[in-house]
Parts: sequence; C-alpha cells; structure tokens
Amino acid sequence: MIPEDAAAHVRAGIDGLAKPRGSLGRLEDLAVALARAQASEHPRSTPRRLVVFAADHGCVASGVSAWPSEITGAMIGLMLAGGASCNALARATGTDLRLVDAGSLADAPRDPSAFYRDGREGRGSADLAHGAALSVAEWDAAWRVGVEEADRALAQGYAVVAVGEMGIGNTTPAACLTALLADVPPEVAAGPGAGADADTLARKRAVVAAATGRERQHLAADPKRAIAALAGREIAAMAGFLARAADLPLGVVLDGYVTTAAALAAERLAPGSTARVIAGHRSAEPAHAAALAHLGLVPLLELDMRLGEGTGALAAMPLLDMAVAILGVTPLAALAPA
Amino acid sequence: MIPEDAAAHVRAGIDGLAKPRGSLGRLEDLAVALARAQASEHPRSTPRRLVVFAADHGCVASGVSAWPSEITGAMIGLMLAGGASCNALARATGTDLRLVDAGSLADAPRDPSAFYRDGREGRGSADLAHGAALSVAEWDAAWRVGVEEADRALAQGYAVVAVGEMGIGNTTPAACLTALLADVPPEVAAGPGAGADADTLARKRAVVAAATGRERQHLAADPKRAIAALAGREIAAMAGFLARAADLPLGVVLDGYVTTAAALAAERLAPGSTARVIAGHRSAEPAHAAALAHLGLVPLLELDMRLGEGTGALAAMPLLDMAVAILGVTPLAALAPA
Repeated sequence: MIPEDAAAHVRAGIDGLAKPRGSLGRLEDLAVALARAQASEHPRSTPRRLVVFAADHGCVASGVSAWPSEITGAMIGLMLAGGASCNALARATGTDLRLVDAGSLADAPRDPSAFYRDGREGRGSADLAHGAALSVAEWDAAWRVGVEEADRALAQGYAVVAVGEMGIGNTTPAACLTALLADVPPEVAAGPGAGADADTLARKRAVVAAATGRERQHLAADPKRAIAALAGREIAAMAGFLARAADLPLGVVLDGYVTTAAALAAERLAPGSTARVIAGHRSAEPAHAAALAHLGLVPLLELDMRLGEGTGALAAMPLLDMAVAILGVTPLAALAPA
Repeated sequence: MIPEDAAAHVRAGIDGLAKPRGSLGRLEDLAVALARAQASEHPRSTPRRLVVFAADHGCVASGVSAWPSEITGAMIGLMLAGGASCNALARATGTDLRLVDAGSLADAPRDPSAFYRDGREGRGSADLAHGAALSVAEWDAAWRVGVEEADRALAQGYAVVAVGEMGIGNTTPAACLTALLADVPPEVAAGPGAGADADTLARKRAVVAAATGRERQHLAADPKRAIAALAGREIAAMAGFLARAADLPLGVVLDGYVTTAAALAAERLAPGSTARVIAGHRSAEPAHAAALAHLGLVPLLELDMRLGEGTGALAAMPLLDMAVAILGVTPLAALAPA
C-alpha cells in the first residue's frame, strides 16, 4: 500500500470512532504515523526490537567524559547479563533487545548471548580533538553494519525498531554533529551528558568548538568526510540503520541526543531518512530539543531522562500499543442508526 | 512502613544502581512517589483499576455542551459493551475497569456486567445557571459512594487506582470549581471541552462566570455548600474517592480536567487529599495546567488528549510499570569490587 494512502485510511477510521473527533490527540497522530511508516492500513506496534549500538571514543583521552572507556565494556557485559536499565525497560515494555558492538575497545564477551553481535570493523576512534575521529572508509564500514541490522530486523518479522546506544564519551561527537548539522552553537550543543562536572564540561565545550570549527570547512564539498571526522562507530552504524530503515516498512523510534545526532547525519547523507521517524522522548541534554526541531520531530515524552541505552525510546513504546489499540474503538456509525 | 521511610529507602536504592545518578529522571521520582503512596519499600504498579464515575448535568439545558445528555447513557452502554476508548486503553495497559453510575439519567442497563455498579443516590443535577446544582445532602451522598469505591479497591487487592469520568456537560461544573478553587478567571476556566463551537463556548463562559460569581460568597463560611452548588454527582463521588484513597496505601492517578476539579474540591474539604496523587497527563483543556499547578502536581504526559473516561490516566500507567521495573537494575556495588 502507498504510505500516504495507508495514513489517510487510518485517519478516516479514527475520525469515525465513537468519541469527539481528535480527542485522543497525539495517540491518533501516532497511529497514522505508524500506518505511514509501515505502509499498512493495519499498523502494528509489535513485535518490536531495540537495537543498541556500542562503541568507544578516542576523545575520552581529552578529558571530556565523567567515565573511563572501560565502562563501555562493563556496560556491554551488564546488558548481556540482563542487568542494565535497557534490559529492565525492554522487559517492562515487551520489547526484544539486540546489542551490536560497532567498535568498542572491550574484549569479546566470553559468553555472548543470542542477542549480541560483534559487528566491529575496527575498535574505537581517533581523538577528534586532534584530527578526524573516523576516516570515510571507517564511517562506511560501520554504516554498512547498521544497514544490515535494519534488513535483519525486517527479515525477522519486526514491525517496529528502536535505536539506542552505549559508548563512553559519545555525547562529545553527538554535540559536534549537532553543532555542525543543526546550526546549534558548539557551547550549547555540548551539555553535561551522563554527568560531566564543571571542569569536564568546560573541556568538552572547548573540544567541540575547536573540532567543529576545524571540520566545518569540508561540509559543503564533502559532507561525509566532515561528519566522519566528528563521529564515532556506533553513530555511523545508527545513521546507516536509520537510512536503510526509512526505505523499509518499519516503524522507527529514536532515543535521545546521540541517536538524534545519528539521525542528523543520516538525513544529511541520505535525505528523507528521518521523514517517518518517531521521536520517543526529549532528553535532559540541553540541545536535544533543537536537534529534534531541526528534523521537524516532536518528542512523545519529556521525562528528564538522560541515560541513553535506548531507554527513552523504550519509555515511548507503550504509547504505540495504545495508538494501535484505539483503532479497536467502536465506530460512531455502529451506534447511531443511519 | 512510614511513607517517608519507604520513599527514602527506594530513593537510596535507585541512587545506587549501575547508571548515572538521576539519569532516569521522572521514572525515578515516580518509583519514589509510588513507594510513598503505598507506604512500602516494594512499590507495585499492578494490579490496578480505573474507576469511571458517570453522571448527568442540568446545565446542559443552558446550552453549554456540544452533546445532548442522552449521550451519557449511550457511552455507559458502550463501555459495558467494551467498545469505548477507555476499554481499548484499559486492555492495552493491563488495567481493570470499573464503571460507577453516580447519577446519570439513563435507564439501568439491561445487561450490567461485573464491573458496573449502579451507585445512584439521585439522578442528574439542577442547572447551575439558575441555582445550586447539588444540595449539600446530595453532595454528601455521592461523596460516600466514592469513599466506598476507594475502600473496595483496597479490599480487592489493588495497588494502584485511577479515577476517570463520563458525563455530558461536566466540563462546565469543572470550570466553575476551577474558577472557584484555583484562582483561574472564569473565562479561562471555561474551555471547549469535548468540542464546543464558538456559540456554545460563549454561553458556557457566561454560565461559568455567573454561577461562580453567585456562589463565591459562600466559600469562606460554607465551602461544601459553594462546591456542591457548582458540582455534579460524579465530581462529588470522585472527590470522596480521592479523599478516602489518600488515607489508604494506594497509588492514585488523576486523569484530566474534570477529575482535577474533583481533586480541587477534595483538597479544599479534606486537606491533604492530593498530597500523594500522581497526575497522569495534562489535557488540551486550556485551564488544566493551572488547576494542576494549584495542587502542586506536574503531569507525566502532554499528548493533547481531551476525551476523559480516564484515558489520560490510562496512558500514564505503563510509566508506573517502568518506574517499578528500574528497581530491578543491577546495583553498582554488585559490579565494582569494594
């Protein structure tokens, strides 16, 4: 079915239900958005999968993060053991979890579970404070991993996919990309992330301003080069995932600041990548609202969350269930005699 | 357990989880709020029940509503048949439904289901445009029905209760009570409700301003008289429900504008009634935000919903599940050796 026909069909159905027109607000819009994304007059909120992409970042050496890179591997281990925040919220919302290592520095897990993929085409990134974080070839390799994940999700029967991330230091490349691509001043784009103190935040702001200033000259002539230089491997993978998912009949849900930076990159390199994306939440990171607005996205939730791991996307998942559920309300025409 | 001890215990536990402190934002606060409300260090989001209180309103004769009073009975029938919006969202969120007729004009249902109660101590109300909608005796009788429902929910093992309503015309008494009790100008308190056109809205504003002006003189000396004169039977029942539930170990979730008006009345007549209440959402009704702010409540969701039937409270229910679920995240101390 043509996406716009599916959307129009669902909208007309909702307008005919036994309730005041429009009275379920954004739940109605969400049902229409799912129909459009899935190109189906019978939108589905399940089965659904969250794909968490992990990687490490050379910029941690420049003192931009409250946490050392070793924590990325520790969190991968915790997710594999089922004890992280994303595991808890995935269980609570009936969402399957998949964890893709797109470039961490960690040892391969001794006991990888069925939902883990070692998708590393390389480990970590260079320190963007001193040069390009990724080469174009490195960007492309990680992007392809994301493309594969989108195809895999569809092939495995999922109706909805959410994108999440884990990577110590990754709000610094996210801030660079937001400054580069969403016209946000670097000092605004660099926020406290997962808990930077004042000194760390000052360093982070300086790094973001310098790196963004250095790479901006390449944006017009070679946007991929500029983006790769300010990115990270999980961001490249998420961008590829989003670009590919946009061409598939899938509902796609964004998480927070880092996933939105990946969406900005996808939209720049593959225009239209975010046209049907659903913004799960607005995080506490100060520039997230501006990044979403640049993409024309209005977040479903604003709960002051700032964890990543896809938790903000997971928090929005039950709203998709409700959006689909309202399609089962009795039509007004079934009540009133013609 | 003392409520504040339960809350402190849960807060300390959350602060020790393997994630940046505070990074799950309002989900963390919600877990603490549930612990406080349930006076338990093991807060629960289930089992839960939505109680929808229904009634009719004499002010419909003054042309304040887009819909005739017959629709109240039709919606009761639709809820009993499982085809209303609240049925759909109750199913989608794993919430039991109970429907209490607190004063409709409808015939008793021919086939009442197990979740229906005919709790009518009288039918409808007088037109508040021309005098008191309810006497104090009528208010008290409906209030007691609500008290019984709170006790019943606890006795039947529920951990969380939500309050919802159905009653053609009931945003007019809600607007009067918001103007009377939350210092909102009558012309602001009277909004479009379930879909009033410009002429209807103009009449509604005039009715709200006149009635509120007439009854305000009694507020200081006899607040129950002033409130009853501007209320309706389902509002009285919800106020009693909230006042009683505040003394019980239950999580309590508010819906939209009319339930918040009942909360304003409960708080005025039984101070402390709303101290531990959770605001499910902010509706599209313009003065709802001011009414919530008057009670010190911050809504979880803002989805432009304006249906009533408890649908906004239901939309928030999965967030309670997530709040409880995060308590199962691995503690940081279990990861890092001491």
